Amino acid sequence: MTEVSNSNIHLALVHFPVYNKTGEVIVSSVTTLDVHDISRACRTYGVGTFYVITPLKTQQELVERLISHWLKGFGAEYNPTRKEALLKTVVKNNLEGAVQEITEQSGKKPRVIVTGAKQAPKSIGYEALKKELEQGEPSLLVFGTGWGLEKNLVQNADHALLPIEGGSGFNHLPVRGAISIILDRLLGNRELPVD
Amino acid sequence: MTEVSNSNIHLALVHFPVYNKTGEVIVSSVTTLDVHDISRACRTYGVGTFYVITPLKTQQELVERLISHWLKGFGAEYNPTRKEALLKTVVKNNLEGAVQEITEQSGKKPRVIVTGAKQAPKSIGYEALKKELEQGEPSLLVFGTGWGLEKNLVQNADHALLPIEGGSGFNHLPVRGAISIILDRLLGNRELPVD
Repeated sequence: MTEVSNSNIHLALVHFPVYNKTGEVIVSSVTTLDVHDISRACRTYGVGTFYVITPLKTQQELVERLISHWLKGFGAEYNPTRKEALLKTVVKNNLEGAVQEITEQSGKKPRVIVTGAKQAPKSIGYEALKKELEQGEPSLLVFGTGWGLEKNLVQNADHALLPIEGGSGFNHLPVRGAISIILDRLLGNRELPVD
Repeated sequence: MTEVSNSNIHLALVHFPVYNKTGEVIVSSVTTLDVHDISRACRTYGVGTFYVITPLKTQQELVERLISHWLKGFGAEYNPTRKEALLKTVVKNNLEGAVQEITEQSGKKPRVIVTGAKQAPKSIGYEALKKELEQGEPSLLVFGTGWGLEKNLVQNADHALLPIEGGSGFNHLPVRGAISIILDRLLGNRELPVD
């Protein structure tokens, strides 16, 4: 099968600034399982870089240790698919750091698309965003942990992707599940020819 | 929004019989996070019952304790969305137990559709299965843990759903991610009208 590349499309998982259950702005903890799951989903759909965003040094070190274990440590031999998934996973202090790196590497500032469980202004649907992504410009899909991205992040984005609606009225998917679904909607092909 | 019901479509997560890394048939351990994530995905798309399949009494008790904690214990008050997600999650000894219960409740044996990372005989694509599911007959989507469903389960099924292809050649999604994507492909609506 011909490999498709979505290397101009990047993804960020934000741990600050996000809301907690009571609406305060907090730094959420990194979940190592999220790092593995989302790295695998990004690798499956050929995403460029997966940015784990946290300002906490100890949490940055945790993620870097995890990546190093699977890339160079015992893990690399034990589970090569985990290694392959983590090759493009990196940690940044804040979202600006991710935007800056993409800008340096592609020569152009990425379009920033935020996601969330609620509809926001400047919203865009899946088919419209899919078409926009197909034009090949650098883009950054931003996902929040906890109870969602802080409002200034949402307001400053170029687009806010419509929430996933399963049609049942229940709207509480885990972020790792939402990311899988959104990558599949934007970058997947439901009826790819089979080898 | 009008609630859609897919209550005739059920899902099973099988922990036995499945393969391990070296191709032996084993009982895999229940991952409590899988139970939460998959319950949420099923609730999002209005799936009927989510069956957790394991023959091990201790593992059955673990899942039942988890469900009870969130339905009746402190968890029910602390996190009501978790409660709502787990209302239709049940444990069964084996896949036949799930088929039998569906048959008793709906008066008809369900069509059994297995899933996996490799293509199998009697394969069906997403659009074809979506059309079949829309006819409303009872159906059971079966997912394996570990390194996939034992071959007799696959051979005895009515259909084997085509693997998810992200187009990158990398085919190692976690089962909770694969389930989210497959439910969205079969039951989701990418451009639902927004409230």
